[in-house]
Formats: sequence, C-alpha cells, structure tokens
Amino acid sequence: MPDTVNRQWILRDRPKGPLAESDFEFRVAPVPEPGPGEALTRTLYISVDAANRAWMSPVRTYTEPVEPGGVMRSMTLGQVVRSNDPALAAGDIVEGSGGWQDFAVAPVAALRRVAPRKPLSSILSGLGVTSLTAYFGLLEVGRAKAGETVLVSAAAGAVGSVAGQIAKIEGCRVIGLAGTDDKCAWLTGALGFDGAVNYKTAELARALRAACPRGVDVYFDNVGGPVLEAALFSMRERGRVVCCGAVSQYDTGSPGPGPRGVPGLLVVKRLRMEGFIVMDHYARRPQAEDALARWIAEGRLVIREDIVDGLERAPRALVGLLHGDNVGKRMVRVAPEPP
Amino acid sequence: MPDTVNRQWILRDRPKGPLAESDFEFRVAPVPEPGPGEALTRTLYISVDAANRAWMSPVRTYTEPVEPGGVMRSMTLGQVVRSNDPALAAGDIVEGSGGWQDFAVAPVAALRRVAPRKPLSSILSGLGVTSLTAYFGLLEVGRAKAGETVLVSAAAGAVGSVAGQIAKIEGCRVIGLAGTDDKCAWLTGALGFDGAVNYKTAELARALRAACPRGVDVYFDNVGGPVLEAALFSMRERGRVVCCGAVSQYDTGSPGPGPRGVPGLLVVKRLRMEGFIVMDHYARRPQAEDALARWIAEGRLVIREDIVDGLERAPRALVGLLHGDNVGKRMVRVAPEPP
Repeated sequence: MPDTVNRQWILRDRPKGPLAESDFEFRVAPVPEPGPGEALTRTLYISVDAANRAWMSPVRTYTEPVEPGGVMRSMTLGQVVRSNDPALAAGDIVEGSGGWQDFAVAPVAALRRVAPRKPLSSILSGLGVTSLTAYFGLLEVGRAKAGETVLVSAAAGAVGSVAGQIAKIEGCRVIGLAGTDDKCAWLTGALGFDGAVNYKTAELARALRAACPRGVDVYFDNVGGPVLEAALFSMRERGRVVCCGAVSQYDTGSPGPGPRGVPGLLVVKRLRMEGFIVMDHYARRPQAEDALARWIAEGRLVIREDIVDGLERAPRALVGLLHGDNVGKRMVRVAPEPP
Repeated sequence: MPDTVNRQWILRDRPKGPLAESDFEFRVAPVPEPGPGEALTRTLYISVDAANRAWMSPVRTYTEPVEPGGVMRSMTLGQVVRSNDPALAAGDIVEGSGGWQDFAVAPVAALRRVAPRKPLSSILSGLGVTSLTAYFGLLEVGRAKAGETVLVSAAAGAVGSVAGQIAKIEGCRVIGLAGTDDKCAWLTGALGFDGAVNYKTAELARALRAACPRGVDVYFDNVGGPVLEAALFSMRERGRVVCCGAVSQYDTGSPGPGPRGVPGLLVVKRLRMEGFIVMDHYARRPQAEDALARWIAEGRLVIREDIVDGLERAPRALVGLLHGDNVGKRMVRVAPEPP
C-alpha cells in the first residue's frame, strides 16, 4: 500500500438489525496532515471488539456514538509518522482510537505511548484492554475468591478466556459457556477450565445445574439475554453478576425484555449485579499489567490471538465476531510490524 | 374472645393468581400447650407485609414457603401466657412468627423479648422490621449520600415512607412514587418529600425526567416490574438500585419478563443493583434502632400506623395491602394492649 493514500471504511448508515458488511463503504482519501498538538499515525492493528457494535447505536453509551458518514471507530495500535508535539516522536508506538483506516490524525493527548514489545500485537491482546477488562471485572467487581464457583459466558472470547483463567489462577472452580464444541474443548483443554457448556446445544438450565451443583458465586456476563436469565437462576446466595457486556443484545434492532428473575431473585438470594467500564479502574492499571505480564511469562495465562490480515477484511472480521466465529483476541493487521 | 379457643386463619390452597380472601379458611382450635423449652403467647398484633404474599409461592425464598392447610404465617407481637423455659416469663412482650391466630406455641429461641413501650404497636411500626429494612437498605446497600437524588417506590408504604424520610434526614433530594394523589400529597406534605409522582396516572418516563432532571442516584425499589424499568432508564452513572422487594410480581401466577435495560444500562451507566434481606444486617440492629428512636423522638421521622381491628379482618387487610390500600405500617390488632 502506498503511503500517499489513506484507505478507510466508512459507516454508511446505522444498522437497523444485525450488522452486515454492506453497512460499510470502502473509500480512498488523502493522507491527512496533523495540526498543532496533533500527530499522524500509521495503523498497525485494529482491535475488533463487540463493543464496536454497541457504539453504532444512536444512544450514547459511555462514549459518543459512531456517526454515519464517518470513519468506523475502533481502538488501534499505531506508529507515529509525524508529530507536532514534543510528547511524541516519529517511530513511537501508540494506542489510540484511530479507527478503520491506514492513517489517522489525533491530538497527542488522545494517544498513549506504549513500550514496544515483541510481537506488538501482544499490546492489544494479552496486555490489552480486553485482558484488563477481565482482570478488573473478575477481581474488583466480582471479587471472586478461592474456592468459589465462577461461570463465564463468551468464554472463548478475548475477555472471557482471560477472566476464566484468572479465576483459575485465584483458585476458583471455573465453568465456561461457548457456542461450539471446539471452543468448549479448548476451554477445558488448553485453558484448564473445570467445565464448559455449549449454550447453543445444551438445555442450559439443566446443564448449569449439572456443571455447578453448588450454584454459581460469580457470573462474568458478556452476553446478557437468555443466558443471563439462566445464570441468575443458578446463582448461590450472595452471588455477584459482573455485567461486562451484552453482546446478545447489541446486534439487534431493539433489545428484548430483561431476564426473568429481576428483581425477585436478587432479593431472595441477595445478589449483586454490577456494571463497569474498564477505564474506571485505570488507577490500578500498572498493577494489573504487571500481574498479566507475569502470568503470561510463567505460562499460567494462555493468550490466543485471532489475527485477520488486511484492512479490507475489517467489516467481515467484526460481523463474524458478532456471530462468534473468533477464538481469543481478534485483531485486523493493517500494516506489518516495523522491524 | 374467650381464652379457651384459638381462632385461626388457614391457607386453604396456594393462590394461583391474585390473592383472594377466599384463599383462607377460618377455624377454631383448642389453645395449644407449650412443650419443653417452648412458650405459649397471646397474639396482640399481626404485622401485615407484602412479603407474606411472597411466602405463599411454592418456591423457597429466604424462608420456607407457607404450606396449604397450615396457619397463615406472619410476624407477630405477642405476650407470653406461659413459658417452659426460664428465658421467658409470663407477661413478657415478644416478637415472633406467630401467624394469624390468637395463640401460638414456639420454642423460646424463636421469640425475641422486647422492652415494652407505649404504644406496643410502635415495636412493629416505627422500630419494626419495615423501618430497619428502610434504614439498612438506604444506608448500607444504597449508600445514599447528602446531595444525591433518591427515588422510592411504594413510597407511602411502611418501608418506603421511612426510607424516603431517612434520605431527607441524610440530606438527599427525595422523590416518591405512589398510586394515589392522596398518598402523593401526604409524601410532599407531612413527610417533606421534594416531589411525588402518581405512577398510575403519570406517563412515568416523562414524569421521572421532570422530577429528577439530573437523574437518580439511588432507587429504592419495592415493586419491580415496569416501574423498575422506568427507573433504570432514569438512573445516573454509578447509580445504585436497592432491590428490597417486588410487590408488583408477588400477586401473580407467574412473574413477567424482567426490565428492559438489564444488563445493557447496567454496563454503560456502571449501575449496581443489589438485593438484601434485613436480617443480614442485624449485627448493627442496635445502632439502627437507636437512630430510628431518636429521629422519631425529635419529630424528624413521622410514623403512620394503619391498624385494622380484629383477627377476622386479617385476609382483607393483606389482600388490600397488595392492592395498595394502606398508608404507612399496616397491622391487625388481635387483642387489646395489656395495661
């Protein structure tokens, strides 16, 4: 790809129902010029996350919605090409929200310089936002303790696979929910989960009773919907539901009714359901990154990268992720890692 | 009533839908004899609570279900007639679960001796379980702080009216939801609420936006159902929903779906929903009772008793409460207070 054009994916219109590749339009624009206090970055990796779909809703979430006609937003890992601020220099590796394009311009304050490591993709995968989400959600929101039973949905995804493994490291009994038998086999095999349930083929309530005979102390919920409802009925007294995401609800025109048992089960079982956003916990990001890096180095935390090659495949990568075709942390490689 | 018979209300069968007076059968039995370690008490007051209806569900809640064919269970205030254990003596005033009858026998360990006060009904009303529920729910679960906006449903009930007033004492802005204009007038008049909404006649979402323009920090939920759903959409970031009860769901054959917005709103607004049972907080019961008694003595906490006279009216008192015809703490007076 020449350095003189900027390929981009534009959100054509707000999806009315399930996201389709045709909701995006490919465009070629000139490479932008950074203004005062800004930097130009070349995108190396695009982080593909279920939250990207939530941002397309017209409703403001914890961030502004993505506007039709604009470049599709995503977290990115990039390299600084040119900087108009001394805080960043050409060659620096930065995290930002560059979106689905080859080049992006941003105020340097919106970019976070990171220490290079090999491979650079590990900055978005093992040490990335999804791992931090798993760490803070499980330990600070769910307060999972040794000996407790932890249930994780979307357990083969980037957040779920790390949340379940951290729970194992902490001494919990861990059951994962995933949508294929292959994913379940990966959870109980390579990742050491104590059990896994294919929620698409199992009779879920019964399967949860069998897998968690003493009930669930912490349910790490990435999906919402009927799986959350089934999990609520399987909770033990004083259980905690970590509300991390609701991927079952993002990709629809209008979310369905909430789970039966709210609030009745919360009262009689004294349950706590709590939502969180990873950024709220960033005061303790250094400790979390240290712990994640140590566990990875010790081989106790297995990180699987699911890399899709080429910016042109970004729409397919996201649509596929929303249908559960990823295992581990999905990224789009836009440019090769610099030597 | 002669002291030689024991009038009782028996639960005929589990109600399939809304509770009816005909679900109970009046019966006269002999006065029971206390066995070793037991005491015979005469019932003075029956506490009439929405939770009584929940106990009729076949599902175990935090307590065993009431069984058809047995005396209807309720909290009671009684006086010891005869005791076979030195821990209690004839004449003592005790709280227990004597149920809907003139006389009850219970192990003395199941009875709680209370200091007599005038009137004795205040032991069940201002200083009773409903007030303790309001206290612990608002302060320990909801952690309401000065300057925050607190929304209370069933606000003219025994729990809600006290929860709202404690929130005022703590320096919060308080909005109450109730089902008649008279109740609303009582909330903003005698009780000093900052606002009240008749949830039966208002367009609830709009009325909440108008009454709580900055959003709700703590929602004290006694009802569940559509009111909870509307409240969730009105919550501010980091708001707390105190799940105290779900009276809208108790008196139906099968509870409806849960509130829309669970878990999506919990995530994006970082909300916490937490259920509790008052007994879980009894380690701090003395402090709570001291605070309640002080506020009542200072005239800052207004307690309204809603006393129905005569055991024969117990079914009507409960059915009516489930339809919202009470204001304040409903009790049935079974026998006159001893001099």
